[in-house]
Amino acid sequence: MTTNRTGARSAEVDVIRRRGPERTGVRDAVAVEDPLEIRLAEVPIAVTMRTPGDDHDLVRGFLLTEAILLDPAEIAGMEHVDGSRLTVRLRDDIQLQAEQFQRNMFVSSSCGVCGKASIEQVELMARRPPAFSVSQDVLAHLTDQLRDRQPVFDQTGGLHAAGLFDVHGRLLAVREDVGRHNAVDKAIGAAVKESWPLPPSLLVVSGRQSFEIVQKAAMAGIGGVVGVSAPSSLAVELAEKLGMLLVGFARGEGFNVYAGEERLTSGAA
Amino acid sequence: MTTNRTGARSAEVDVIRRRGPERTGVRDAVAVEDPLEIRLAEVPIAVTMRTPGDDHDLVRGFLLTEAILLDPAEIAGMEHVDGSRLTVRLRDDIQLQAEQFQRNMFVSSSCGVCGKASIEQVELMARRPPAFSVSQDVLAHLTDQLRDRQPVFDQTGGLHAAGLFDVHGRLLAVREDVGRHNAVDKAIGAAVKESWPLPPSLLVVSGRQSFEIVQKAAMAGIGGVVGVSAPSSLAVELAEKLGMLLVGFARGEGFNVYAGEERLTSGAA
Repeated sequence: MTTNRTGARSAEVDVIRRRGPERTGVRDAVAVEDPLEIRLAEVPIAVTMRTPGDDHDLVRGFLLTEAILLDPAEIAGMEHVDGSRLTVRLRDDIQLQAEQFQRNMFVSSSCGVCGKASIEQVELMARRPPAFSVSQDVLAHLTDQLRDRQPVFDQTGGLHAAGLFDVHGRLLAVREDVGRHNAVDKAIGAAVKESWPLPPSLLVVSGRQSFEIVQKAAMAGIGGVVGVSAPSSLAVELAEKLGMLLVGFARGEGFNVYAGEERLTSGAA
Repeated sequence: MTTNRTGARSAEVDVIRRRGPERTGVRDAVAVEDPLEIRLAEVPIAVTMRTPGDDHDLVRGFLLTEAILLDPAEIAGMEHVDGSRLTVRLRDDIQLQAEQFQRNMFVSSSCGVCGKASIEQVELMARRPPAFSVSQDVLAHLTDQLRDRQPVFDQTGGLHAAGLFDVHGRLLAVREDVGRHNAVDKAIGAAVKESWPLPPSLLVVSGRQSFEIVQKAAMAGIGGVVGVSAPSSLAVELAEKLGMLLVGFARGEGFNVYAGEERLTSGAA
């Protein structure tokens, strides 16, 4: 692979296309995946395999959705040490203890590790979303809007996308990444730069709605998650518990509501 | 959600199906997701969100593909503490140091964190696969074979699958999980129970071929990775470096070869 891919979102590689007996050598684009180490006040707290670009959004979103920070304004600045390391400086009045870096980790305690304990932990820490409702018509167009804004996926077929929309269907931010979680962190990190707390909004994802995706939305005060794919059992339980809207298999006017149907209104926005 | 889902791979939930103006209440199956804490000699080393079932395969595979153990025979036994915790006992002659649990973590050192360092780390630790070749005909049928063996996906649409095949196309093991990495660990963990080292074999995955998927295959001495979706740039670089076969967008007789084409022979097995 000869392409210089520093900072690029996609890279060209030599590919042999086989179609039965046919063999064709072509150049094709793949999504770039590269590690990023996140440092908080010089302490490395995580390494994520991400698609370069929007690193500031990624890290701002990550710190919020993992409940390491409670407000994006706690960040005084972010600087790349190099292409694979980014340091976050906090405001002088923000004192973080080491255990706060681990708020996102499951702690093995006498109560044990289980789905119920995971849900209770999120419930304790989630930001209560503002009251909202969303019309069926708006919902029906969200996944199309997301699909229309995936330039790197169109080149590579290898990226997840996440978009944040307000309840009138207006796009707040959309981002792509090789990782499902990173795409969500980037979109949230971009949106909260403009507005915090977020207005009543919905997270729209190209991939599965797992527990951690719903958890990330909950930590950012997002009232609903919409996906083109399937939710997991624990994602449904968490959304029910938090009163969030959870929609799966969303394809135009057809979709399945797994939780929070009371948020849906019929007709136009 | 009222279903008792202890130990089950799928759970029934109440779903509202919206199809334009139509609204239908149905019971539908979702994939179960639930945390599992992995303990090694009583020390918790990881928590993974997994689909219950095949926990022993999952943990055996995880310990190998994360290079925590070098041989499945180092395991003396595994017992569930409860439905969400599993303890692994090691053979008396196996002494593990704490830092070995962290062999899978990126260590921030003077050499820095970057894609090149990630590849070099895997190169140092990977098990050299036996020499092998695989015919184009065999390759063309692997993804169909995987697709035919996804019972829980068929119910829920929400699971990843991974299969291990020998180079004659014989299935060694296939497993499903809500997590891409878990499905791979389960399939590898099941296969190595029968045969270690593995015979020349290929890992076939339903999802994207990221760096970590190729890394897991490399750690188990598997010579190639075949997927129905797209590889990432770093996965291509790693496969090239290790001389592995890497095939993407595999759909019957059509597929793209990203690395290791010299492993492919034309015609029948």
